[in-house]
Amino acid sequence: MLRHENVEWFGMTAAESILAGDRLALSRLLTQVENGTKEGQAELDLLFKNTGHAHLVGVTGAPGTGKSSLVNQIAQVVRKAPEGTPRSVAIVAIDPSSPFSGGAILGDRVRMRDLAGDTGVFIRSMASRGALGGLAGATAGVVQVLDAAGFDLILIETVGIGQSEIDIACLAHTTIVVENPGMGDDIQAIKAGILEIADILVINKADRPGVENTERALRVNLELGYPDGGRNHFLGEIGHLSENGSDAGQKPGAWIPPVLRTIATQPSGIPELVEAIWQHREYLVNSGLLAKRDQERLEHDFEVTLQAHLKEDWKAKTDPSVLRTVIEQMFRRELSPRQAVDRLI
Amino acid sequence: MLRHENVEWFGMTAAESILAGDRLALSRLLTQVENGTKEGQAELDLLFKNTGHAHLVGVTGAPGTGKSSLVNQIAQVVRKAPEGTPRSVAIVAIDPSSPFSGGAILGDRVRMRDLAGDTGVFIRSMASRGALGGLAGATAGVVQVLDAAGFDLILIETVGIGQSEIDIACLAHTTIVVENPGMGDDIQAIKAGILEIADILVINKADRPGVENTERALRVNLELGYPDGGRNHFLGEIGHLSENGSDAGQKPGAWIPPVLRTIATQPSGIPELVEAIWQHREYLVNSGLLAKRDQERLEHDFEVTLQAHLKEDWKAKTDPSVLRTVIEQMFRRELSPRQAVDRLI
Repeated sequence: MLRHENVEWFGMTAAESILAGDRLALSRLLTQVENGTKEGQAELDLLFKNTGHAHLVGVTGAPGTGKSSLVNQIAQVVRKAPEGTPRSVAIVAIDPSSPFSGGAILGDRVRMRDLAGDTGVFIRSMASRGALGGLAGATAGVVQVLDAAGFDLILIETVGIGQSEIDIACLAHTTIVVENPGMGDDIQAIKAGILEIADILVINKADRPGVENTERALRVNLELGYPDGGRNHFLGEIGHLSENGSDAGQKPGAWIPPVLRTIATQPSGIPELVEAIWQHREYLVNSGLLAKRDQERLEHDFEVTLQAHLKEDWKAKTDPSVLRTVIEQMFRRELSPRQAVDRLI
Repeated sequence: MLRHENVEWFGMTAAESILAGDRLALSRLLTQVENGTKEGQAELDLLFKNTGHAHLVGVTGAPGTGKSSLVNQIAQVVRKAPEGTPRSVAIVAIDPSSPFSGGAILGDRVRMRDLAGDTGVFIRSMASRGALGGLAGATAGVVQVLDAAGFDLILIETVGIGQSEIDIACLAHTTIVVENPGMGDDIQAIKAGILEIADILVINKADRPGVENTERALRVNLELGYPDGGRNHFLGEIGHLSENGSDAGQKPGAWIPPVLRTIATQPSGIPELVEAIWQHREYLVNSGLLAKRDQERLEHDFEVTLQAHLKEDWKAKTDPSVLRTVIEQMFRRELSPRQAVDRLI
């Protein structure tokens, strides 16, 4: 009898079941990955060779801008694509923690109504429940599993708070930043620096007053950020690729984030947004940036895993009483954290 | 002749000059710490024993809520304290990066006008200029130097974006979250989870319509989060301290974040806010939480420093060509990041 090192259901590993399209196995593995179990990690390793197919889209912005509705509408438009085969969509909704919240539950009910019964759509809500540090890692794992499971488009929705935006900008191929009319007119809003992570800017609730001002403010700031019509913005990155010869002779123009108006509740402007997503993917593929971003992400995962292992190894061979003594000297401010580390290594 | 291992100015180390109140030496060291130089780190080690005196207040919230004006007003009220000696104030304004921005410069001009000529106030702007990861570390160092330099109150202002809020909540003793009328009415806003890091909630621009609704929404959510009138909120923490015997027999009630109205531009409501800051400090001291948070922060600094050292050591003794080969196998998806680490350790 063939023996697997991993959990078996009906004679198949979870990884095999997931690749065969088993949604129950998928949900189970996602839970394991979220909880960081060893079994989950082993299955992730098995599935890793099947990743790299999906297009990953991060959707971020301040609370209340209508990200959830927008994500639902994007999913519906992608599923109803008139030409060719509609693509399959996975939605990962990240709700940072609030025990106050209930937001995740409510959001999911709305989702269920809009997207129910479509087997080409898979929805996963993640609540960090206070584990602020661990959310990014768990999300990366969840996205990897969904990628391996064969979803064409993965929409990752984060509430605009904490580490999530920056982490999502690292994780996603395309980052959509959602604003509302009345935002962006203010120096403070520009100060936010969120424009830097945006590949596509969306002004949702565009039927509200002030939409022209917001659009103008965003465009002016984009022009400030992309002098020369944006020609220089990606020069650093593309220049770097050219040195390595990987895109020699191929120099597409830079990507200037479009500013789009939507009304998710009508809906209005969604097909144009979906079109912009695919255009951005095309740009990334043609410029070699897709491969480059992918490699950077893998290198980052590698570094994080390496650091965790090195720390574990070190702790295993360090005398706990010596460690305790040094930490207490640090608490008494006799040693700085750096001096404490020097003392121990 | 006495020799110091550190930079000397006028026969004193930078650390000695700073402890003697030299503002130029202070500014120079802050620049070194921001740039992460070895000299800066050595001076930080020397100054470390002088830290632990200042009260650290983080001020965070969405862009445009008026945080800068509020911070300026807090500084002025603290400086004009009618009774006893006014406390010295340092302001650390963190501007996350934007090359689009210019916000930092503008903000500083306003500050200069309001606070110019008061030697009891020191202002430092930090612009991360794209170094998203490094900002938190540099801020911790800057705050440490200002603490050692003897400032009584350190106000750390972050634009509400990216990692900053969460990191500031870890760094600060008291975290003030700034809202505006019209915010907080929305389920999405509550979903943000920012309430969890707030020790004091401020509705700034309280002369605008909708202030009653916002206040009610915030209070309702606080009540949901602090059932039993807040009695249970810190039970976990206080209970933990009790086990260690460090606050035996001393059980102050839990801290329920007050919701305060301010109009920074008038100004109005600022003395009440300053009073709330000192009350929160008193609560932290009496409950033992101040010491506990301080230790947690030191432990965190220790862990971060340790990880960096371990990685450096490991890289120094790893064959770069072997590392490159494994990384390339990972890029071809023949190895997952975890498998790549296993292969190398």
